[in-house]
Amino acid sequence: MKLADYSPAPPDEADKSKIKEETEHLLQTIQERQKMLYAQGKYSLLVILQGLDAAGKDGAINDVFSGLNLLGIGVTAFKAPSELEKSYDFLWRVHREVPARGMIRVFNRSHYEDVLVPKVEQWVDEETVTRRYAHINHFEQLLADHGTVLLKFYLHKSQEEQLKDLTERVTNPQKYWKHNDGDWQIIPKRDLYLDAYEQIFAHCSEVAPWHIVPANKNWYKSYCIAKQVAATLEALPLAWPSLG
Amino acid sequence: MKLADYSPAPPDEADKSKIKEETEHLLQTIQERQKMLYAQGKYSLLVILQGLDAAGKDGAINDVFSGLNLLGIGVTAFKAPSELEKSYDFLWRVHREVPARGMIRVFNRSHYEDVLVPKVEQWVDEETVTRRYAHINHFEQLLADHGTVLLKFYLHKSQEEQLKDLTERVTNPQKYWKHNDGDWQIIPKRDLYLDAYEQIFAHCSEVAPWHIVPANKNWYKSYCIAKQVAATLEALPLAWPSLG
Repeated sequence: MKLADYSPAPPDEADKSKIKEETEHLLQTIQERQKMLYAQGKYSLLVILQGLDAAGKDGAINDVFSGLNLLGIGVTAFKAPSELEKSYDFLWRVHREVPARGMIRVFNRSHYEDVLVPKVEQWVDEETVTRRYAHINHFEQLLADHGTVLLKFYLHKSQEEQLKDLTERVTNPQKYWKHNDGDWQIIPKRDLYLDAYEQIFAHCSEVAPWHIVPANKNWYKSYCIAKQVAATLEALPLAWPSLG
Repeated sequence: MKLADYSPAPPDEADKSKIKEETEHLLQTIQERQKMLYAQGKYSLLVILQGLDAAGKDGAINDVFSGLNLLGIGVTAFKAPSELEKSYDFLWRVHREVPARGMIRVFNRSHYEDVLVPKVEQWVDEETVTRRYAHINHFEQLLADHGTVLLKFYLHKSQEEQLKDLTERVTNPQKYWKHNDGDWQIIPKRDLYLDAYEQIFAHCSEVAPWHIVPANKNWYKSYCIAKQVAATLEALPLAWPSLG
């Protein structure tokens, strides 16, 4: 598959106010189902958010997950690995953060960074990357066997929109804290990153497929994610546990 | 101090609808300040919730903290220590869960359980308990020196209300999952637990004071907690960071 074949914009027929209303309903469904997921303590949900800088991962988390019962949900944001983390295999720090039974965990970036940056920057050879794809698939199967449902989202945003949002980080004082010189250095490498993502979709969709989310507009992005999360929770055989 | 001197009921003059309205304003303040706390990445907030079974800790978390930006907040629920956890000192598993700079962390139970159950059940001698008080104070000072503000709440509920809520766990099918035989065995030991809490308040208030929250009514309980959290966040010298 080619990312170029996917539109980062909402479909023409999408009506913003209707979509926002539908999103509200989806969020209510998610809230209701989360209560039962937590009470039952049998299944768990791991949501993986990937995308280039300023693709809108933080905003998606805020929009879709911030209203849930905090007891049953948490976020892990993966940054560049520390020296300590680098002294272990690349899945070590990830494994510690997976959701326990009953829980939802959102990964803001994930183990997929380890087949992106090191690949594009050629810090590792192609054989290592290929082996990592296999390790990821085995790891995700391990989680799935334990009752963890994986939902993987790629937030797909046009370069034009991305540059607009990166620029806001140096013009809006309330966004200064998000600015990072490194984000600008990556812009010329956009195509290499998109290629690396296409490789990921090709090699790591066995256990759980990737959802390509049009991310140019926040209201449509959050709707798409909420829709998948709600459908996933509705498909699970959840039930209130019996006494004792 | 004696817990018997504190009323678990809201004060007579408290007007429920007014209090709920005020709570809404406080939650908005907390949301606004959390954004800056997170962006600045300088201070952190550790909220410790303690109280007997069915005192309303879960509900307080849901009411006061569930609306915040998930990227900057998380909950840790401490249960009876596992075999692995027991093979370390009692603060080991707690230290791993403290909030990093910029973050809010809510502890649903905490290291204070280790000077409660083992003390009341006499699994450890009084000298050990006394040494643990000192360890807790030193540990909390370490966190405070790093910019972590501690807020410690004891949820104070009458035995009558507690029994009502425990009974609901065996009569309401949507609450069955909260039922635990052990909770009933502790009822006759109520006074021993209250004594142990009074000892905690006497020995572990150096770094951060304890707030005794009237917990008979959820609307008043959540209001008291929200008020302290808002005041704490407003007192911190938060600011949007500058560029670079």
